[in-house]
Amino acid sequence: MHNEMPKVTPWEVRGEVDYDELMKEFGVEPLTNELLERLKKFSGGLHLLLRRGVFFAHRDFGEWMDSYERGIRVVLYTGRGPSGNTHIGHLIPWIFTKYLQDVFKAILYFQVTDDEKFLISTGAEIDEIRRYAYDNILDVIAIGFDPNRTKIFTNLDYTKEIYNIAVRVAKHVTFSTAKATFGFTESSNIGIIFFPAMQAAPCFIHQIIENEDAHVLIPCAVDQEPYWRISRDVAPKLGFRKPAGIYSKFIPGLGAGGKMSASLPETCIFLSDSPNDVRRKIWNAFTGGQPTLKEQREKGGNPEVCVIYWYFYYIFEEDDKKVQELYEECRRGNVICGDCKRGLTDKIIKFLMEHQRRRREAEGIIDKFLLKD
Amino acid sequence: MHNEMPKVTPWEVRGEVDYDELMKEFGVEPLTNELLERLKKFSGGLHLLLRRGVFFAHRDFGEWMDSYERGIRVVLYTGRGPSGNTHIGHLIPWIFTKYLQDVFKAILYFQVTDDEKFLISTGAEIDEIRRYAYDNILDVIAIGFDPNRTKIFTNLDYTKEIYNIAVRVAKHVTFSTAKATFGFTESSNIGIIFFPAMQAAPCFIHQIIENEDAHVLIPCAVDQEPYWRISRDVAPKLGFRKPAGIYSKFIPGLGAGGKMSASLPETCIFLSDSPNDVRRKIWNAFTGGQPTLKEQREKGGNPEVCVIYWYFYYIFEEDDKKVQELYEECRRGNVICGDCKRGLTDKIIKFLMEHQRRRREAEGIIDKFLLKD
Repeated sequence: MHNEMPKVTPWEVRGEVDYDELMKEFGVEPLTNELLERLKKFSGGLHLLLRRGVFFAHRDFGEWMDSYERGIRVVLYTGRGPSGNTHIGHLIPWIFTKYLQDVFKAILYFQVTDDEKFLISTGAEIDEIRRYAYDNILDVIAIGFDPNRTKIFTNLDYTKEIYNIAVRVAKHVTFSTAKATFGFTESSNIGIIFFPAMQAAPCFIHQIIENEDAHVLIPCAVDQEPYWRISRDVAPKLGFRKPAGIYSKFIPGLGAGGKMSASLPETCIFLSDSPNDVRRKIWNAFTGGQPTLKEQREKGGNPEVCVIYWYFYYIFEEDDKKVQELYEECRRGNVICGDCKRGLTDKIIKFLMEHQRRRREAEGIIDKFLLKD
Repeated sequence: MHNEMPKVTPWEVRGEVDYDELMKEFGVEPLTNELLERLKKFSGGLHLLLRRGVFFAHRDFGEWMDSYERGIRVVLYTGRGPSGNTHIGHLIPWIFTKYLQDVFKAILYFQVTDDEKFLISTGAEIDEIRRYAYDNILDVIAIGFDPNRTKIFTNLDYTKEIYNIAVRVAKHVTFSTAKATFGFTESSNIGIIFFPAMQAAPCFIHQIIENEDAHVLIPCAVDQEPYWRISRDVAPKLGFRKPAGIYSKFIPGLGAGGKMSASLPETCIFLSDSPNDVRRKIWNAFTGGQPTLKEQREKGGNPEVCVIYWYFYYIFEEDDKKVQELYEECRRGNVICGDCKRGLTDKIIKFLMEHQRRRREAEGIIDKFLLKD
C-alpha cells in the first residue's frame, strides 16, 4: 500500500494528481513526440485527446504498432464498471478507443465488470447493477464502434469463457501479489480478491477463443494501470504476448478539485442529463474568474484552474487555435465567465442530444455487439 | 490452522483418525440411534453404511427430516474433485446419496470441481482434468441415480449459474475467514482462495434457479465438512436455510494405514481395475493375520487391523450375521488370510464387472444428467 498522497488505486481517486510522479510510481513511459509522429503515419492527424495530452503515457505502444506493421493481429481491450449512470468522464477512453479501432481496424473486447461492482458495493443488489450494465452498454454502442469488430460482454453473462481463462490466470497470482497491487486486506472478500483474474482474462480471450496470435492494447484511465501489471506478469507464463497500454489523465469534475465522480452528481455531466441539468451544473461550476466583472476586466481570469476552460480544452473545442485564443483572451480579461459558461453549455447540450439519439438507436442493434453464454 | 496431528483438511488426509476428536473439533453431532430409528420410518431398513457406522456424524439431519415431513422440498448436494480415476473409496458417499435420493425422492445436485483441481494441481493441464471429469461422471451415473432427479455439472462447463451465485456468497466471506477455515497463506493463488464460494454455490442453486424454498443435505466424507461451515454462515445472509450435512469416515487403504489414496495406486481398487489388478492388490493387502499358519491357528488373527476384514465390513458383506461370524472365526484362528483374500477378491471382481457394465450404459444417457451453459 502507498501511504503518500495522492493515492491512486483502481477503487479510489481523490485530490490533485501529479502525473509525472504517477508515471514514475507506476513505471510507465510518456507518450513522446516520436511515438505520436509514428502514429500520425497511420492515422493522418492526431486525435484531440492526444494533442491536448489527455492520453499521456503508455507501455509498449511502440511495440504494439510494430506488431500492426508486421501483420500481427492487433486487439483492443477496455471496459466499464457499471456502478451507475455514465458521465462524460467515462466517455474519454471510449472515444479514444473508437479512434484506435478506426485507425488500426482492431477488434475490441469490452468488459463490463458487473461482478466487481456487486462485490465492492455496500448496498446494491445484483439486479440493480445489471440494469446499470445494460444501460452503460447502450452508451458504449452510441460512441459508434464497428459492430463487426466489437464484442461487449458482462462477466455475469459471458461467464463461462471468462472464468475458464481467469482460473488459468489466477493459478499464477498469489494472494501476496494481489495484495501488494490492489491493497487487499484480511477483511477483503474472497470474490474481489479473485476479481483481478476476471479482469485480466480478456487480455487472452482472442488468443484462446480465436486461436490466433494477437497483441493487445489497453486504453484506459491511468488509475486502472495496476491491473495490467498482473496480466503482463502472467502473459508469458500462459504463452501469450504482454498486453500494451495507453493511459489517460482524469477529466476534472465541475467542482474545485478531483475528477468527475458519479458519487458527487453535481460534479459531473451525465449522458442522460437534460438541457436544464447541464445549464445548472455548468452555471455552478468552479471557474478561474475574478469576483467582480471589473476585476475580471482588469486582472484577467485564471484558465489554469477553470473547469470551464478545461472542458473546452479536453473535449469540446476541437480547434487548437481557438482554444489557444480562449486561454489568452481570458488571461487578458477580454472574456467573462458567463459567456464562457453559455458557450460550453450550448456545446454540451448539442453533444448530449446527439448522444441520446444514438443511444436510442443502440437499443435496436445491441445484439450485434453482445457476447453471452 | 491446526498444528496437532492428525491433520484433516479438505486437501490432505493422512494417518490414523480419531473420529470422536474430529467430531468435537468440527462441532458436528453423532448419528444417534434415535435419528436412525426415525430414518427407518421412511426407509424401511437401514443402509449398510449406517449399520456399520461409515456414516457416523451430521449437522441438522433431524431438522432436514422435519422439513421432508412438512412437505418442504428436500435437496441433496454432493460432488467430486476430478483429479484422477475413481476408486472404491470415492463411491461410498455416492452410494449413500443414491440411497437417500431413493428414500426421500430428493433432487440431487452433483458438482464436479474441475476448476479446483486445476487450481491446486502442480502440473495438470485443464484438458487432462476435464477428461477425468467426464470419466468420473460416468462412474457417478453408473451408481444408478434417477435421471429425472439428478443434475450433474462441472464448474468449468456450468459456470454462469454457479459463478453468479458464488459472487453472492463471496461477498460475505472475508479472506480472514477463508484462511482460518482452509489454511490459505500469502502464497495461495487467488483462484483457490475464491473457490470456497464456487463450492458453496450449489447449496443455494435450487432456491435461486427454481425459485423454491428448499432444505439441502450434503452427504460427504467428513474431511469436506469445513466447506459447509461457510455455506452455513452465509445462508441466512442470503435468506436461505442452512444446509444440513451427513458425514462418513474414510475407507481405509489396502496398506498398513491411511485412507485409500489415488496417489498411492496399490492402496486402492480403481473402478477401472482388471480382475488381475484386483487379485494382485488384495493379495498384497495388509491383514491382521499371523506370520505363519500354525500361529494363526493357535493365536487367531486381528480383524481390528485387517483391511480385508474392513472391506467386508464396510462394503462387501451385506449380511450383519455373516460379518460378525467372520470376525469371531478369525479371532479364533478358524479362517486363514488366503481364504479371506480370495473371498473378497471374488466379491470385488463381481462388483467391478457390474459397475463397468453400467458405466458403458452411462455413456449413452449422460446428456440426461448434465447441466451446461
